[in-house]
Amino acid sequence: MPDSTSPIGIFDSGIGGLTVAKAVANLLPNEQILYFGDTARVPYGIKSEEVIRKYSEQITRFLLRKGVKMILIACNSVSATALESVLKTAGDTPVLNVIEAGADAVVASHFKRVGVIGTLATTSSRAYEKALRERDPDIRIISRACPMLVPLAEEGWIDNEITRLTLREYLKPLEKEGMEALILGCTHYPLFTPAIRNLIKDKDLKIIDSADSIAAAAGNALETLRLRNSSAESGSFQCFVSDRPQRFQELAERFLGRTIHHIEIVDLE
Amino acid sequence: MPDSTSPIGIFDSGIGGLTVAKAVANLLPNEQILYFGDTARVPYGIKSEEVIRKYSEQITRFLLRKGVKMILIACNSVSATALESVLKTAGDTPVLNVIEAGADAVVASHFKRVGVIGTLATTSSRAYEKALRERDPDIRIISRACPMLVPLAEEGWIDNEITRLTLREYLKPLEKEGMEALILGCTHYPLFTPAIRNLIKDKDLKIIDSADSIAAAAGNALETLRLRNSSAESGSFQCFVSDRPQRFQELAERFLGRTIHHIEIVDLE
Repeated sequence: MPDSTSPIGIFDSGIGGLTVAKAVANLLPNEQILYFGDTARVPYGIKSEEVIRKYSEQITRFLLRKGVKMILIACNSVSATALESVLKTAGDTPVLNVIEAGADAVVASHFKRVGVIGTLATTSSRAYEKALRERDPDIRIISRACPMLVPLAEEGWIDNEITRLTLREYLKPLEKEGMEALILGCTHYPLFTPAIRNLIKDKDLKIIDSADSIAAAAGNALETLRLRNSSAESGSFQCFVSDRPQRFQELAERFLGRTIHHIEIVDLE
Repeated sequence: MPDSTSPIGIFDSGIGGLTVAKAVANLLPNEQILYFGDTARVPYGIKSEEVIRKYSEQITRFLLRKGVKMILIACNSVSATALESVLKTAGDTPVLNVIEAGADAVVASHFKRVGVIGTLATTSSRAYEKALRERDPDIRIISRACPMLVPLAEEGWIDNEITRLTLREYLKPLEKEGMEALILGCTHYPLFTPAIRNLIKDKDLKIIDSADSIAAAAGNALETLRLRNSSAESGSFQCFVSDRPQRFQELAERFLGRTIHHIEIVDLE
């Protein structure tokens, strides 16, 4: 049985979820973190719900075998389409996800006109709309799929002319509607925060990065469940992936913001 | 045992290989075509050689079970990294691939300075370099990975300002070197042919689309092996995919250039 010294399991379709791992490590430095990125089958955002559910169940079973005390779904596409499957597979192990964490952050600040950008899978699922409306039926939501942003982030084009034109194309309709907050509904998007800031005229726009929101929610949930690690030492970070592709280490460290020492390849199929 | 009435099997990591199916159907209209696109696990171009090999073997076994008389590898990433695995799995069934077909087309026209653009997997493998140098040791090759082009094609941004800037960024170094021919080393890239033509100053530049090259090679090989279908009727087209994602039909028909009636989802895992 997992106890307070067990690791927190975090998973994503690829390496973007390392932004969540980074936020958790910053907020809860003495927790052990076990990360799984499905790099052999990334990206999920263009796949059907059925396939995303199947892959998510495989990963959940892997994390349970590793004895995690809590599961954080860092992937917006999984949170949007496969949450029920993960919850059912996880049984008694608590599960948090980036969409509900992001929705909580919006509602806490009483925003009424909210933009959401994400992958095709995330925006088509309308999962942010559902999560926000459940919390506040008066919120107006303008959402937009931005399929070019993940490849731009992986190419390392974070703030060049191509990136600026692409962001303008995607964000123009949202800006026109006078959004007060913008949810970055994909783990890759926080890399574009500076470029978005430069582009948007409204300097009060609140940009909501769900990595920070889910890290805070995880801390609260661990307190409530009396599962906070009380060790005085820094927690370890273990990284599991289903493939180690070209440029992996470089990219992974860009997202995590530090060196990764332990990477292991596992085959879930 | 397959005979002349059996289908030609064509496979790709996704739907881009439908450009090869289109070229084959145009050149050999009475052949049956059986297409497999690994849409659940696309794209291959960012994955490791090991994973690409495993997936390619699974697909080859699927095509053999379907009784194909010949296999065309429409995917450059597979041709570049997993050709040996496919040949071994295919046994006596003849296998052609886009890279050797493209290299043959270059050498037939005696070009000496050749540009190659493709995915990360294709360019890192240096497979075009090897195929070209085996045929003509004096050829000078300038290659460049263009990871943004597949997402641009799938977004439908074929000739806007973002596409033009991206192509300029990728093609500038190749143009500087004075290339005489440019191999489009990815099945998605033929969609950009008009934009590339507008961008490149050298109006004599030969753009080599390996879909046409492999269709011609398939026709010749079938003649030699006495496996040409002698039916007077138009061949059927069957499409198998591992997932039916968002926007699938629209995208698939953009690549194939006609309506698709038969699509079946198969699970190879």
